[in-house]
Amino acid sequence: MNGDSLLIHQPTRLSIMAALSTLEEGAKVDFTFLSEELEVTEGNLSSHIRKLEEAGLLNVEKVFVDRKPKTWIALTARGRQAFSRYVEELEKIVRGAGQGEL
Amino acid sequence: MNGDSLLIHQPTRLSIMAALSTLEEGAKVDFTFLSEELEVTEGNLSSHIRKLEEAGLLNVEKVFVDRKPKTWIALTARGRQAFSRYVEELEKIVRGAGQGEL
Repeated sequence: MNGDSLLIHQPTRLSIMAALSTLEEGAKVDFTFLSEELEVTEGNLSSHIRKLEEAGLLNVEKVFVDRKPKTWIALTARGRQAFSRYVEELEKIVRGAGQGEL
Repeated sequence: MNGDSLLIHQPTRLSIMAALSTLEEGAKVDFTFLSEELEVTEGNLSSHIRKLEEAGLLNVEKVFVDRKPKTWIALTARGRQAFSRYVEELEKIVRGAGQGEL
């Protein structure tokens, strides 16, 4: 496992990516809502989202709604691909694939 | 994710547990063979195996064969259960289960 998959493998980031992958393409979720759903503190969630954003896997959009700041989080196309690849890799590892005679 | 599952989640430990879980119950593998199959250095493998052994998930047996030291690694019954539970938990997370409306 390496690159994007290793980044995604961290449990909190995995739950973020998995939650977003269940949405239809292009859909976005509110940061506060995501924090509550995943039961992750906003500080913790924020730091993991930043890492995923820096890797180009998430898109973060800050807007004002009724003069209040709101943050939308969405999977990028690359993020969706990376998550699919991660799941495939993980399935192989879990099945013990590639271990020859074992 | 917590406890045994969090311990197993680390990529090298996950590949060790997965490899051993493909064997029939009670079967054991040679340490050197495992190191080659998983493409993990003996030092690295050794440290991960120690952690899994300390948690009661693996059984480590050191014997002499033709006067040469040999180390056998096997999954304990508890290790087999913990790995099954880990896989179940992981499947739930990957499917984005438990995220309510998401």
